Amino acid sequence: MLRNNKTNIINLINGVRDGNRKFLAQAITLIESEKREDQVQSQILLTKLFTNNITSIRIGITGIPGAGKSSFIETLGTNLTKTGFKVAVLTIDPSSSITGGSILGDKTRMVELSRNPDAFIRPSPTSGTLGGVKKSTRESILLCEAAGYDVILVETVGIGQSEISISEMVDFCLLILISGAGDELQGIKKGVLELADIIAINKADGDNLEASKRTALEYKNALRIFQSSEENETPVVTMSGLKNIGVDNLWEEISKKLNVIKLDGTLKKNRMIQQKKWMWEMVEEKIIREIESKTDIMKLKAEMEELISNGKITPVSAAESILKNIYS
Amino acid sequence: MLRNNKTNIINLINGVRDGNRKFLAQAITLIESEKREDQVQSQILLTKLFTNNITSIRIGITGIPGAGKSSFIETLGTNLTKTGFKVAVLTIDPSSSITGGSILGDKTRMVELSRNPDAFIRPSPTSGTLGGVKKSTRESILLCEAAGYDVILVETVGIGQSEISISEMVDFCLLILISGAGDELQGIKKGVLELADIIAINKADGDNLEASKRTALEYKNALRIFQSSEENETPVVTMSGLKNIGVDNLWEEISKKLNVIKLDGTLKKNRMIQQKKWMWEMVEEKIIREIESKTDIMKLKAEMEELISNGKITPVSAAESILKNIYS
Repeated sequence: MLRNNKTNIINLINGVRDGNRKFLAQAITLIESEKREDQVQSQILLTKLFTNNITSIRIGITGIPGAGKSSFIETLGTNLTKTGFKVAVLTIDPSSSITGGSILGDKTRMVELSRNPDAFIRPSPTSGTLGGVKKSTRESILLCEAAGYDVILVETVGIGQSEISISEMVDFCLLILISGAGDELQGIKKGVLELADIIAINKADGDNLEASKRTALEYKNALRIFQSSEENETPVVTMSGLKNIGVDNLWEEISKKLNVIKLDGTLKKNRMIQQKKWMWEMVEEKIIREIESKTDIMKLKAEMEELISNGKITPVSAAESILKNIYS
Repeated sequence: MLRNNKTNIINLINGVRDGNRKFLAQAITLIESEKREDQVQSQILLTKLFTNNITSIRIGITGIPGAGKSSFIETLGTNLTKTGFKVAVLTIDPSSSITGGSILGDKTRMVELSRNPDAFIRPSPTSGTLGGVKKSTRESILLCEAAGYDVILVETVGIGQSEISISEMVDFCLLILISGAGDELQGIKKGVLELADIIAINKADGDNLEASKRTALEYKNALRIFQSSEENETPVVTMSGLKNIGVDNLWEEISKKLNVIKLDGTLKKNRMIQQKKWMWEMVEEKIIREIESKTDIMKLKAEMEELISNGKITPVSAAESILKNIYS
């Protein structure tokens, strides 16, 4: 890790700008670090490398575990590098702090792509809260772009809050589903569907092709109920990431939609909104974190929660006690 | 408005406890006030009147404008008072600060119920942010309970963030929909459906009965795709609030579900979780509000947003500048 070393940070900045993957990996490790000295360096790094160019595109990829996200990304990524793109893959995995296994998992699942000189794969940090993961992913996107990656794929592992976070940092959301027993899809919540700009039914090959087509139709019909006009309809396509069937077609659909929002200015506008939101979130987060870093206040918070659970204090009085302590 | 007047606050507390509607209305006006002196009084009031009794039930009612929420509440409320319940109706209306018309609207729409001695209707405050409306509604619920109301109906007007807020303060969510041209329902988002514990298709009478039944079936099918088992299936019923058809049946369905969560302890557990969350939200909110009340910092924030929009500063540097100002 780098420490207050001016030469090192300049090397790092230049290394990232040159598209050197080793330096890029180091830079991400730096911004993921929660050490105070590293955070100071991170700020310098991000400030120097930040750019408002909209040459890159940021795509969020969500879906339940087992939907074949990694195989799909391996195939899509490989296809894209063949047509001249540089592809970065980042993951948001709120569970990785528990299992600790995502690094090995991701690397081994995307064997081909991880060896591709035009691709960069970075798993989720193995520790930290979802807020922390979100922050470091947002910053990693910027570093990858500074290193010349054109397509940034942000994958979420697991279902839940993370899809909402992802939509605040990407230009476009792809939801990957699979056919199968209806119950298999139980993890999909309606809030997740809502965020999808496009839905792909994966594993649509061989014996599974017909079932996948039916599933696509089911989702199309289910979505139609909630969508106002054909223009706004979320496309639902079938594909097989593993067999590379329909992946090009899916990419075409994505490109079409992306072109629209690029040309009409929506993409740029969204990014500016994301940036302003991000700025104030950083401020709020830091303020709350300052409070939460005070052990006496956290001790008091736990005590108050206990009293609430036992019905011995009202939430209002409990909050008041804590605030009195903060502003005393 | 009351000001540092010990006799008055004691009168108010006793008045609310006696179930006097005039005092209850005054108490709510007090907690809605953003004046510092009133807030001090509010704290006393809430602390004195807070209770952990679970004799009341809190039901959130959401649905698009025009779904007939008010007519339904008028009928349900009237039915319930006839069987011995005391019913309070509160509304969350994020738009009321703009239109300013919700007070008249609500009152005139629920003519019968507003004259009923066992009912209490309180429209959303006509000013304030959604956060503020949320806070005052949460506190109004407590005051109504202290005044002896058994059924608290919290209605949201308009679609959006407010349904999510409502689920954090009620025991149960009812979503009211209507049949009609598919496009009519365009306001319904999937995130809203997800929060519903029960769905009622309103205006199911006369010529509209068959269409309403079809709509109910469509939603049932659409929901089935996303729900794991029959046990967890969200009931979808038809009814007519205006004609008082099926309202008793709907209430029976609600009671059934409520009984389950009362008996298995889920309701109590949920309320404790809501309370702890509420406590910390009050702390965080107050801390952020302290920051936002500082005009110099808000001026700096606006400047930074402008710079971001023009691409002249990175969000990281902008946040840093603001934080430096806060902690200097």
